Amino acid sequence: MSLSVKHLLGIRELTRQDIELIFTTADQFKEVLQRPIKKVPTLRDTTIVNVFFENSTRTRISFELAEKRLGADVVNFSASGSSVSKGETLIDTVNNILSMKVDMVVMRHSATGAPHFLSKHINVPIVNAGDGINEHPTQALLDAFSIRERLGSVEGKKIAICGDIMHSRVALSNIYCLKKLGAEVTVVGPPTLIPKHIAQALDVNVSYNIREALEWADVANVLRIQLERQNMPLFSSLREYSLAYGVNRKLLDSLKKDIVIMHPGPINRGVELSSDVADSGQSIILDQVENGVATRMAVLYLLGRNEKEPATAK
Amino acid sequence: MSLSVKHLLGIRELTRQDIELIFTTADQFKEVLQRPIKKVPTLRDTTIVNVFFENSTRTRISFELAEKRLGADVVNFSASGSSVSKGETLIDTVNNILSMKVDMVVMRHSATGAPHFLSKHINVPIVNAGDGINEHPTQALLDAFSIRERLGSVEGKKIAICGDIMHSRVALSNIYCLKKLGAEVTVVGPPTLIPKHIAQALDVNVSYNIREALEWADVANVLRIQLERQNMPLFSSLREYSLAYGVNRKLLDSLKKDIVIMHPGPINRGVELSSDVADSGQSIILDQVENGVATRMAVLYLLGRNEKEPATAK
Amino acid sequence: MSLSVKHLLGIRELTRQDIELIFTTADQFKEVLQRPIKKVPTLRDTTIVNVFFENSTRTRISFELAEKRLGADVVNFSASGSSVSKGETLIDTVNNILSMKVDMVVMRHSATGAPHFLSKHINVPIVNAGDGINEHPTQALLDAFSIRERLGSVEGKKIAICGDIMHSRVALSNIYCLKKLGAEVTVVGPPTLIPKHIAQALDVNVSYNIREALEWADVANVLRIQLERQNMPLFSSLREYSLAYGVNRKLLDSLKKDIVIMHPGPINRGVELSSDVADSGQSIILDQVENGVATRMAVLYLLGRNEKEPATAK
Repeated sequence: MSLSVKHLLGIRELTRQDIELIFTTADQFKEVLQRPIKKVPTLRDTTIVNVFFENSTRTRISFELAEKRLGADVVNFSASGSSVSKGETLIDTVNNILSMKVDMVVMRHSATGAPHFLSKHINVPIVNAGDGINEHPTQALLDAFSIRERLGSVEGKKIAICGDIMHSRVALSNIYCLKKLGAEVTVVGPPTLIPKHIAQALDVNVSYNIREALEWADVANVLRIQLERQNMPLFSSLREYSLAYGVNRKLLDSLKKDIVIMHPGPINRGVELSSDVADSGQSIILDQVENGVATRMAVLYLLGRNEKEPATAK
Repeated sequence: MSLSVKHLLGIRELTRQDIELIFTTADQFKEVLQRPIKKVPTLRDTTIVNVFFENSTRTRISFELAEKRLGADVVNFSASGSSVSKGETLIDTVNNILSMKVDMVVMRHSATGAPHFLSKHINVPIVNAGDGINEHPTQALLDAFSIRERLGSVEGKKIAICGDIMHSRVALSNIYCLKKLGAEVTVVGPPTLIPKHIAQALDVNVSYNIREALEWADVANVLRIQLERQNMPLFSSLREYSLAYGVNRKLLDSLKKDIVIMHPGPINRGVELSSDVADSGQSIILDQVENGVATRMAVLYLLGRNEKEPATAK
Repeated sequence: MSLSVKHLLGIRELTRQDIELIFTTADQFKEVLQRPIKKVPTLRDTTIVNVFFENSTRTRISFELAEKRLGADVVNFSASGSSVSKGETLIDTVNNILSMKVDMVVMRHSATGAPHFLSKHINVPIVNAGDGINEHPTQALLDAFSIRERLGSVEGKKIAICGDIMHSRVALSNIYCLKKLGAEVTVVGPPTLIPKHIAQALDVNVSYNIREALEWADVANVLRIQLERQNMPLFSSLREYSLAYGVNRKLLDSLKKDIVIMHPGPINRGVELSSDVADSGQSIILDQVENGVATRMAVLYLLGRNEKEPATAK
C-alpha cells in the first residue's frame, strides 16, 4: 500500500484510504515510541531540510524528532537571518536547497499555497507544516488519530471546533479530515470569526453558542485565540471572550456527558481553556503532542518509501 | 555504582560519593577525548533535548558535544522565537517536549528552582544547566575536577572565589562542591557583593582584600564581572574595580607561591583578570573548558545508565 | 596525494596541484550525490564546528550538508546570542571551542584575516567560509569546478567577472583560482567599483563596458549587488545600474555566441541579472549550488585525511 499523493500539501488532496494508511502506519510508530529504543532507521541516508519561514518551535521539534527517529539527517533552515531577508524569492531559496540534493522538504510559510507552488517545480516530497490560513495537514492527522485512539473511531462522531475558525488553518484541515472520515462537524465561536459562506461551502454545522455546541458534541477541539494578532470586535477584552466562549470546568459539569477536550497548543490558560480542564482526565492534549511525533513519522516514512519505489502510484 | 539522585538539580543534593563517582567516570571520558576517535556511543538511541530559556552558547555547545560523543540524538530548543514568547507556561512547554518522548532534558532557566519544579512533574532525568541565581552544578563539577587534576586532590586545598559572590550561581555551586570534598573556601570581593548572612550560612571565610585572600589561597577562581547587568556601587568605573579586585601579573608576582588561576569564562580581559595571567602557565582556564565536556559526559552517562537499570538506587 | 596546506585559508595559498586534487576528489563526491544513498562516512567520529560570526544560511547549509554526508558530527555556532556579544575576544571564543576537542573548524568572519590569525594558534584544520573583503575560497573552487564541468576545462577560457569587484571576496578568490588554472580574466563594472591599482596588482583585464566584456568572454560570473550595504555613486538608482550593467536577454541575444552565465546567489532578480537569463539553459547557477556541496565535501575530506596521516606533507 502506498499514498495516492507524492507530497502532503493538504488534507484536501488525500483520500480516505490515504488517511487510514497513515493511521495504521502511525499505530506501529506509536508502539515504537513506548519502547526504550525509539529509533527505526528506515530513512537512514535520507537528508530532510526543515524550512520554516514562520517560527514554530513546537511543530519544528516534533518534525525534527520524527525525522531523527527515522534515522534521517536533519538540517534546519529558518527565515530569520537567511537569504530570505536579503530579498531572495521563495523559488530561489528552495531551488538552492534542492540543488544541494536534499531528499525531502518540510515547509512552513505565511503565504497560502506556498508548498503547492513549490511542488510544481521540484522533484522531492514536500510536507506542508502550515501555509498561511490554508492548511496544517499533519495537525489534522494527529488530531483525528487522537480521537480515533480515545473513542475507537472517528466515523459517526460529533466534533465541535471552537474559536477563531476564520483565521485557522488547523480548523480548515480538521474539517477536511473529519468529514472524509465520516464525522459530523460543528464550528462554534463568535459570528465575526465564522464567515457564513465558508461554513456553507464546507458543509459543517454552525453555532454561536458554546454550551449548545458542547451539549451536542462528543469532542471539543478548542482552538488557540491568537493573542498576538487577534482583533475580537465583539469583545472588549479577553476576559469577556473567556466568559462567552471559554471552556471551563463549570461549563463541562453542566453537560450530560463527559466530552473529550482537545487543543492544538500552546494553550492560553484561562482564556479559551481553563487550567483544570486542560489538565483533567477528559483532556487528551498531551496525547495529541505524542501522537504528533508518531503521525509525522508515518507521513515521512510513507512519502520516503514512495520515493524509493518509483513503480508505485505517484 | 550509581548516583544517589535521579536528576542533577544542584550540588546541594549530591553526596560526596556522587561527586567522586562523577569524577572517576569523567577520568575515563577525558582519556577518550585524547584519542583520535572520541565517540563512546553509550547513549545511542537516546534523545536529549537542550532547553535553553537563557542564551549560553558556551554551555550549550559543551553539552551538545558531550551528548553527541555519547551517541545521543540532540534537539536544541531555545526560548527566543519559541512558544514561550507566546505566553505558554513553563510546565506546558516542558510537558509538550516530554510528550514527544524525549529521554533526557538539559535545562537553563532564569528562574531559581525551575528544574526542581519540573523534576516533580516529569519522569526523565533533568540536568540543571543553570537556574537563576541558585546553582550551576556542572560548572562546579568541572571546576573541582580541574583542581583535582592540577593539584592531585581537592581535600584540604584552599580556594579563593573572587568577585560578585551575591549574584553568582557558579559561586554557590562551587562552595557546595568544594566543602563536600573537604576544601577550605574564602570568598573575596567588594562588601556590597558578599552578603554577610550568606557567607555565614555557607560556612566560608570572607575577605574584602584580594591580596590577603590570594596569599592564603592555593587556587583563585576569578568570577566574571557581569558587565551587562552589574551595578558596582562601590566603584565609579570598571577601571576602579580592576585596580581594587582585578587579578594581574603584578599582584601574583608579589605572592610567595604560584597559585592556580581559574575562570568560568567568558573573560573580561583587563577587568577581573589580566591577559598575561589568563594566558600564563598558572592558568587552567582552557583545562576547565576541556574538562567541561568530560564531566558533562560523565553526568549524562550516569543519569542515563540509572534509567536503563531501574533496579538501582533512584 | 594530499594538499600542500593544512588549512583552507584562501586560494592564494593553494598550488594548481591542490586545486586539481580538490576537483578530482569532488568529481567522485558529485557522483555520490547522484545516488539514492548519498553518504560517505569517511569523517565518522569527526566533530566539525561551524563558527559563523556573519549570517549566511546558504553557505552554512551547504557546509552542514557536506559535513553530514561525510558522516561528521556537526555543531553550529552563530555569533548572535553568543559570548561574542558579551565582549569575548575572537581568540577566547575559538580557544574555548577547541578546548572542547573539536576536530575541524569552518569559520566565517567579517574581519579580513580572522582565519589566518587563528591558524597560527590552533592545531586543527580551519576552513575559511569567507573573511571580510578578503577571500571566500570554497566559492571560487565551486565556481571553477562548474566552469570545468560545463566547458571541459578552465585553462585558456575567458571569464568576465561582473559587478562590484572592490568589495567582493568572491571576486578576489575567483581571480586567484582562475589565474592559477590558466584562464584569462576580465573584471567589468562601474569605475568606482574597480580600483585600478587592484586590477593591476592582480594582472587582470579591466572593462567598464559590459557589452564589450561579454563579447570577449566565454563565461560571465555576475556578482550580487549588495543592496543592503551598497552605495553606488555613479548611479542614482538600482534601475540605472541595471540599465548600464545588468545582464539580460536582450544583451545576451546581441552577442555572437552563447556564453555561460554564473551567479554566486542570492540573485537580485531584475537588478544585476534578469529572470529569463537566470532560469535559461545558459545559466549554470543551480549547478554551482550543487557543486558547492561536492566541492566542500572534497575540501573537508582532504583536510581531514591530512590529519589522520601525520606523515604526509603539512
